[in-house]
Amino acid sequence: MPEPDDPDCLFCRIVAGDADADAVIVLEESQAVGFLDHRPLFPGHTLLVPRVHYETLPDLPPDELEPYFKTVRLLARAVPEAVGAEGSFVAMNNVVSQSVPHLHVHVVPRVRKDGLRGFFWPRTKYESDEHAEETAEKIRAALGSLR
Amino acid sequence: MPEPDDPDCLFCRIVAGDADADAVIVLEESQAVGFLDHRPLFPGHTLLVPRVHYETLPDLPPDELEPYFKTVRLLARAVPEAVGAEGSFVAMNNVVSQSVPHLHVHVVPRVRKDGLRGFFWPRTKYESDEHAEETAEKIRAALGSLR
Repeated sequence: MPEPDDPDCLFCRIVAGDADADAVIVLEESQAVGFLDHRPLFPGHTLLVPRVHYETLPDLPPDELEPYFKTVRLLARAVPEAVGAEGSFVAMNNVVSQSVPHLHVHVVPRVRKDGLRGFFWPRTKYESDEHAEETAEKIRAALGSLR
Repeated sequence: MPEPDDPDCLFCRIVAGDADADAVIVLEESQAVGFLDHRPLFPGHTLLVPRVHYETLPDLPPDELEPYFKTVRLLARAVPEAVGAEGSFVAMNNVVSQSVPHLHVHVVPRVRKDGLRGFFWPRTKYESDEHAEETAEKIRAALGSLR
């Protein structure tokens, strides 16, 4: 077995093929590995992780975006097809609510009236148009500083 | 105002700059436009849409994956920074629970104990190892047929 990129990381151990990690692999790409989430929202719920231990989406190097999301896109077709679903929920948590600090995109098969709603959290409203505009201005400023 | 790609699509009208669509734009790229979700989970919740009317992630042409997700990645840095958040939830619904049939990635700022949990749906389990393996085999077969 090759050395895991980070021996303390469950997903690195799955990538390295550690049998004790007990993962059911669905695809192995040169840069990423897909496996079943062991506590699926629905059967077929797949996680895709880069082979290298990047913690979050912002940590993924720009030149790895294309191969990684090409595989996400492929899974967004294959997973629903495999289980006879109508669509998919594709999501990632960065830092907050991220159970394992190794980037993973969830690809979850969805059917209508499956009891889930992709976004059923209590939505809110901006207090005013000015509040929305001030918020947008902060984002524009942050974008400007990051380019 | 340029013609919207699909005049019946709200997001195409936002991309075309239709003032009646009443969107607060945060960034304009050559291939994508970002604007505030008008019913945010938290202030700063941004939607990124391709300028062209692609319905879902599988419909996005492969050569547009890199610029699109490069911008998603940028937003995953800028949005939390803008509002003083710790992380982000980055998600898209394809077909099911997709409110507007024009691809849109949600970038939602998150802080710990913000009252949301990225994945707080009732998780399930595979009935058996065989059930997991059979499910994985269907996904592998679908992947094989799609390559």
